[in-house]
Amino acid sequence: MKLYTFAPAPNPRRVHMFLVEKDIELEEVEVQIREGANLLPPYSEFNPLRTVPVLELDDGQKITESVAICRYFEAVQPEPALFGTTPLEKAMVENWHRRVELEGMQAVAEALRNSNPRFEDRAIAGPRNFAQIPALAERGLARLGFWFKDLDARLKESPFVAGENFSMADISAYITVGFARMVKAQPDESLEHLARWRAGIDARPSSRVGT
Amino acid sequence: MKLYTFAPAPNPRRVHMFLVEKDIELEEVEVQIREGANLLPPYSEFNPLRTVPVLELDDGQKITESVAICRYFEAVQPEPALFGTTPLEKAMVENWHRRVELEGMQAVAEALRNSNPRFEDRAIAGPRNFAQIPALAERGLARLGFWFKDLDARLKESPFVAGENFSMADISAYITVGFARMVKAQPDESLEHLARWRAGIDARPSSRVGT
Repeated sequence: MKLYTFAPAPNPRRVHMFLVEKDIELEEVEVQIREGANLLPPYSEFNPLRTVPVLELDDGQKITESVAICRYFEAVQPEPALFGTTPLEKAMVENWHRRVELEGMQAVAEALRNSNPRFEDRAIAGPRNFAQIPALAERGLARLGFWFKDLDARLKESPFVAGENFSMADISAYITVGFARMVKAQPDESLEHLARWRAGIDARPSSRVGT
Repeated sequence: MKLYTFAPAPNPRRVHMFLVEKDIELEEVEVQIREGANLLPPYSEFNPLRTVPVLELDDGQKITESVAICRYFEAVQPEPALFGTTPLEKAMVENWHRRVELEGMQAVAEALRNSNPRFEDRAIAGPRNFAQIPALAERGLARLGFWFKDLDARLKESPFVAGENFSMADISAYITVGFARMVKAQPDESLEHLARWRAGIDARPSSRVGT
């Protein structure tokens, strides 16, 4: 089994953080996405989506989506549970993880990929090129500002994003907040619940992967 | 337990289709979203996100995301499994379901919400208004055309979207293909694998919910 990855990028980074939390070690192959190695053969033939990470299983099957890789390991090694244990916890992790992705990660991605010259004609990751849409970058930044406030409000009522326990929703949210530096956005200092939660995750060894 | 819903809309519809496949019946409360009832009190106070569906549990807790509602019932009643059983199946359902959502559902939503006058200033579902971005509607339509072809290619190699078994990935893909009528897009007749798969799902009783 091999993980094709580039740990500093946000999607791979959440897989690495998940693996550290699970205490799982894997053989890794680094893909130099900053130099565009993912867009060219041999990688573009190995993974036509041209994305990282990819988990290649021993029989050659490939899992190309970060959260799917995490769910694979959750099923193989259930403890510590990062997608919930009871039906309600499982639902709440899915619920809050989706909201993190739709309201936070997507906002950062839209802001970055539609404004940064590095992503000219690469506004969407994948096998096809799409032009940047400046209005979408603006909308992404606006949404990101709302998301920081909404996340703070959630963390006022709950120790972690999905409830009482650290979960995949915290991993994705934490990495998104950090990655928002790329579009020069960070939570206002007045968002004290977000700050408390973030400091708690800063103290976990898993927070240091990819940095 | 109550499901607040409007079955013809695509997100509620996938929950209903899931419930029929599981043979689970619930008390339902219809929310007239076509008349904007979700945007006004009392619903906007019940669910500040202003979205449907919502599953309200007996203790008052709410699950607001369609797929989270489905995962709740998958955990409560595992059979028939619609999110996979083995670790690899679970990973593959997540993998393909995400691709359906990111490449298909998101494309239809972008095309519809950024062009149809019904969604003026409501380009994103949720508590806040966002203006339509015409370039995003165009991009959504283009992506949808690619998605139909990619889905056909996937269904050439696999009986169902995520592999050998009918799963949540089929439910979301099937409803997305049907809903694409709203932006006057349908798969070309030459996409025979997609057509074979679609006809198979048309024959399932669950396909008729919300129609």
